[in-house]
Amino acid sequence: MSKVGIIGATGYVGIELLRLLLTHPLVTVEAISSSSFKGEEIASIYKILINKINLICENPENVIEKCDVIFTALPHGLSEKFALKALERKKKIIDLGADFRLDSEKDYQQWYGKNFINSDLHKLSVYGLPELNRKKIKNCSIIANPGCYPTSIALALMPLLKNSLIKTNNVIIDSKSGATGAGRGLSLKSHYPELNENFVPYNIGCHRHTPEIEQTLSSIAGESIEVTFTPHLLPINRGILSTIYCETKNNLSLKSIHQIYDEFYKNEKFLQVLPLNTTAEIKNVKYSNNCQISLHENYRKNKLIIISTIDNMIKGAAGQAIQNLNLILGLNEDCGLNMISPPF
Amino acid sequence: MSKVGIIGATGYVGIELLRLLLTHPLVTVEAISSSSFKGEEIASIYKILINKINLICENPENVIEKCDVIFTALPHGLSEKFALKALERKKKIIDLGADFRLDSEKDYQQWYGKNFINSDLHKLSVYGLPELNRKKIKNCSIIANPGCYPTSIALALMPLLKNSLIKTNNVIIDSKSGATGAGRGLSLKSHYPELNENFVPYNIGCHRHTPEIEQTLSSIAGESIEVTFTPHLLPINRGILSTIYCETKNNLSLKSIHQIYDEFYKNEKFLQVLPLNTTAEIKNVKYSNNCQISLHENYRKNKLIIISTIDNMIKGAAGQAIQNLNLILGLNEDCGLNMISPPF
Amino acid sequence: MSKVGIIGATGYVGIELLRLLLTHPLVTVEAISSSSFKGEEIASIYKILINKINLICENPENVIEKCDVIFTALPHGLSEKFALKALERKKKIIDLGADFRLDSEKDYQQWYGKNFINSDLHKLSVYGLPELNRKKIKNCSIIANPGCYPTSIALALMPLLKNSLIKTNNVIIDSKSGATGAGRGLSLKSHYPELNENFVPYNIGCHRHTPEIEQTLSSIAGESIEVTFTPHLLPINRGILSTIYCETKNNLSLKSIHQIYDEFYKNEKFLQVLPLNTTAEIKNVKYSNNCQISLHENYRKNKLIIISTIDNMIKGAAGQAIQNLNLILGLNEDCGLNMISPPF
Amino acid sequence: MSKVGIIGATGYVGIELLRLLLTHPLVTVEAISSSSFKGEEIASIYKILINKINLICENPENVIEKCDVIFTALPHGLSEKFALKALERKKKIIDLGADFRLDSEKDYQQWYGKNFINSDLHKLSVYGLPELNRKKIKNCSIIANPGCYPTSIALALMPLLKNSLIKTNNVIIDSKSGATGAGRGLSLKSHYPELNENFVPYNIGCHRHTPEIEQTLSSIAGESIEVTFTPHLLPINRGILSTIYCETKNNLSLKSIHQIYDEFYKNEKFLQVLPLNTTAEIKNVKYSNNCQISLHENYRKNKLIIISTIDNMIKGAAGQAIQNLNLILGLNEDCGLNMISPPF
Repeated sequence: MSKVGIIGATGYVGIELLRLLLTHPLVTVEAISSSSFKGEEIASIYKILINKINLICENPENVIEKCDVIFTALPHGLSEKFALKALERKKKIIDLGADFRLDSEKDYQQWYGKNFINSDLHKLSVYGLPELNRKKIKNCSIIANPGCYPTSIALALMPLLKNSLIKTNNVIIDSKSGATGAGRGLSLKSHYPELNENFVPYNIGCHRHTPEIEQTLSSIAGESIEVTFTPHLLPINRGILSTIYCETKNNLSLKSIHQIYDEFYKNEKFLQVLPLNTTAEIKNVKYSNNCQISLHENYRKNKLIIISTIDNMIKGAAGQAIQNLNLILGLNEDCGLNMISPPF
Repeated sequence: MSKVGIIGATGYVGIELLRLLLTHPLVTVEAISSSSFKGEEIASIYKILINKINLICENPENVIEKCDVIFTALPHGLSEKFALKALERKKKIIDLGADFRLDSEKDYQQWYGKNFINSDLHKLSVYGLPELNRKKIKNCSIIANPGCYPTSIALALMPLLKNSLIKTNNVIIDSKSGATGAGRGLSLKSHYPELNENFVPYNIGCHRHTPEIEQTLSSIAGESIEVTFTPHLLPINRGILSTIYCETKNNLSLKSIHQIYDEFYKNEKFLQVLPLNTTAEIKNVKYSNNCQISLHENYRKNKLIIISTIDNMIKGAAGQAIQNLNLILGLNEDCGLNMISPPF
Repeated sequence: MSKVGIIGATGYVGIELLRLLLTHPLVTVEAISSSSFKGEEIASIYKILINKINLICENPENVIEKCDVIFTALPHGLSEKFALKALERKKKIIDLGADFRLDSEKDYQQWYGKNFINSDLHKLSVYGLPELNRKKIKNCSIIANPGCYPTSIALALMPLLKNSLIKTNNVIIDSKSGATGAGRGLSLKSHYPELNENFVPYNIGCHRHTPEIEQTLSSIAGESIEVTFTPHLLPINRGILSTIYCETKNNLSLKSIHQIYDEFYKNEKFLQVLPLNTTAEIKNVKYSNNCQISLHENYRKNKLIIISTIDNMIKGAAGQAIQNLNLILGLNEDCGLNMISPPF
Repeated sequence: MSKVGIIGATGYVGIELLRLLLTHPLVTVEAISSSSFKGEEIASIYKILINKINLICENPENVIEKCDVIFTALPHGLSEKFALKALERKKKIIDLGADFRLDSEKDYQQWYGKNFINSDLHKLSVYGLPELNRKKIKNCSIIANPGCYPTSIALALMPLLKNSLIKTNNVIIDSKSGATGAGRGLSLKSHYPELNENFVPYNIGCHRHTPEIEQTLSSIAGESIEVTFTPHLLPINRGILSTIYCETKNNLSLKSIHQIYDEFYKNEKFLQVLPLNTTAEIKNVKYSNNCQISLHENYRKNKLIIISTIDNMIKGAAGQAIQNLNLILGLNEDCGLNMISPPF
């Protein structure tokens, strides 16, 4: 049994991660920390855990000390120092925040308004999208767990980009996310009467996930990809659905494209390419680590439309982090991640 | 007081229209019909009307006989014959269905699978988008009330198209609609546990509103416009929000475009162009006849993003029909339509 | 046209009141105040008001100065001083908060933890439930607008209590309210992911509305009434539904009870006693000033069950305040309050 | 590995049961049937199962033939004949419908309008509430899996009734259930725009679960218990919360009552008695087999208020059925049922 711990266990990503780790058959959660609830029992904060565990929120240092692999689930800018400490003690770290996602410090400065504390550290990190970087992840000490939007988008476009099949200058991505994406922090946008029965775009054309999306797509394609990305807030708890518009280079039929996807993902446990003429929807991936993709075209057949959906808190955060953990530990990639989406 | 009536008063569009007409100060609802509830009191079907009115669902023929202006709120293919009867009696008709929206019988056959019963009738009809066809509507006997999606989209693009400011071959429209758009008819898609906490695209690239959108946009632009249109179903009752992606022809600044919109709509009572750096959202137009529009660009500034939102049942159906009624009767266009959206 | 104003116009009750007053045909909103948004345009805070009005949030003193009738929509403890100032200037005040609801200072101390500033002031005030105190309200200068729960409950029991028909020691009230009842203030309870797909009782057996409910029921009955009152929070925006359990004194049939209700409320414009075998539900009163009541019994027929539903923000707050305003001004009681609930 | 099967696998209870059984470590789902989808792949009906299993909907007879334990998840009146067939083949049956829940045929006739087909069969059946009938269940061939409301209520009152601590003639139960309780069948009540933003009581005082509740409570108490039971429909997918009002016989303090509950349930894995001054809410049991109970009193302390909450589809149906299966098979009672509720 490997010993794992969470720094930042009481935020939404942290608690979801804790929940999933508690049913993982081959790891034990040894310690957790929370700056807001230091010294408190986790079960008194989240009553879902009553009679399940007796964990008290400790200092981050204790977590690093007691565990082999440490997850950080913190606002950006706070994980880097813990990563450094972990590395010094030969521990591995999986960061669910944004600190290690961008390769370019300039991008990080522009979009997150901060510098890298230690540039060398960043060179050691790997972008933790298993379907893309499986091999590198296995031997890495710092894993940058991808953002939720970038995950849904990279998985949707990877088969096309790996094969250089689409025009790269005009990819349009219209994404919609559930409210947990904004976390546990209170804000008027997430105040129940404001979001309920509402639907609202935000950070149009300038969301922080844009450089991460472009970096990942460009790295897959081997050439520079520019996107227009518009996120929207859905009045639901969980799930992301991205509607992606692009044009294929050479008049490929939808059927051929579908075959390419099927072939590309045939060995991936969490990727499901739906049959033609069916449509991906959020409810079929909720509470699972799956990504479902469906392919469509407009009636004039000159425009490809890709629908990609994941659970933002699982494949888009905590589940993917465990997938990375499994790779690090040499376990089956789906160990502890075999949840089937509930039908409702 | 003008006498008006509704054929098909117990469907969702019909009942919403009835509700609005009952508080209109210058018309009386003289008669209504319903094929499902013939002979029944409307207040026994919709308890919102208890103690408010005593109207019994009659035959469509009675409605035509008793009223000066007749609204038809019926599934497509059923309004044409009533329009004919109404015209023979010198009555005016406002059709909230799809029968008169498409000019081309070929398009109607392709998308709705039916022929025109009487082609001459269609030549008499006017597309009832007041902001576009105000003058024609005033003197017309058959008004084709626009579809909900086309309304949100045409109003969003009209200032650009009238001035030939955008490239016409690549307009991408990603629309999201509340559940009332699908009407009162039962279906698994609208079954509560299926739609709640879900979000689902449908009729991707091939929705019936596509030819209506293209016809209207082309007629505004004076040249052929092709769009990619993807509707999605939101887990809310009311409202449509369309996210529209296009490119301007000559490097116009967002500020200039905003001025063009402001100028274009300055006299329109129901159109509100939001200040730059604010975002349209559904809750601010719900239960009103307003359309709110906000303008954005992506961070590289080569792509314009327009957000347009209406209440699908009011500006997208019943409210717009009353706006057309007011034009026909020579009343103020906003008579009976001054509802302010509730804050929640 | 009477001049009215609102102190506290940007909270949920305040903005809803403003919305309704703006469509009232016989009053003008002359001034508003807000401590959070002093100096700001109301339309920049609530975009539902764009192009509708140009009102700037002023000082409370200005509101009192400029208006004939002043509404206060403030947290408890803040209205009393404004009431005093208003009275000194011979203005009338309608308080939508809790300051004047309880007759007994001891109760106020116990439940709200404050003293009366000026006891004489309280003797001048009238409890503004028009169906109970219509005559007194007309000639009063300080009106205590009732709480939302007490309104739904008092209207449900009044016909029985006025006729001494129920046992008074065991009335059980199980109430459920929408989220706007908790106002615009942020809290984890109203954080979208916490309330959505949840349902939660709160302040069980000890909610602050309990003494107001008991005071009002006792005053109606002419004898002391004790209740058990449990409020619950519903994942919806608006509406209260109270399920009330009581026992009739002498074996009255449900039919007789129904006739008593019908007779009792036959002249009340906002009260609708539903036919036997139909059930009141929130959606049929939402966005209206109506209260719908249905009567039931358990299959053994020894227990009466009353369902009573209102819109918590209208009949439970802003609408009732306008009903009181109309009484003060000698207008028709339903002037500006004729909204029909939307069907969805 | 025991072989189990489901007759009626495509209804809401059936599919939830299938989902849970697929992650049960010690059983295999050998066969399923569905009258609506005979011959179809289950994964084509429920896309949550794509890539997970290859099961085709067969005849009920095949299910009985191939499996050791058969679950029936059917409308009432349809399970009895399959139970008979199963028994003839020495198979065991767990019925998730209502056929075997009522001991008295007279009650069954009155509330369900049907006769028992084979009275002897009913004498063999056991009411499958493990916390009450654990021993009997282990050796039984026909298990009547309890209704969802009765489960939430019996667990809430058992510690009091076993100890004869409450007055038995005036128990009031106000229950609220999510929409999945009404199943997959289409109806206007479950049509999205009708239930969303609504809340509605139904079958007031005469719901079919009433005799089951009274039978179970009476059997626990050893004397006749009469209840008033009002169910309400919540605009959420899952969960039941029951608010129960009763009076203790001898002035027991809340603290004593709490200790009695704690002691009574200390060895029950799925029962969690919350600390005093905390409140049970639906979100903390959703998607789990847990029942959380909190205890309260009104401010005058003469009335006990019990809050009890379960997931209607798990502890109220499919999960409890698996708990019964585990008892039959001699497994740990929580085998395959260790799900922790997600935090949102």
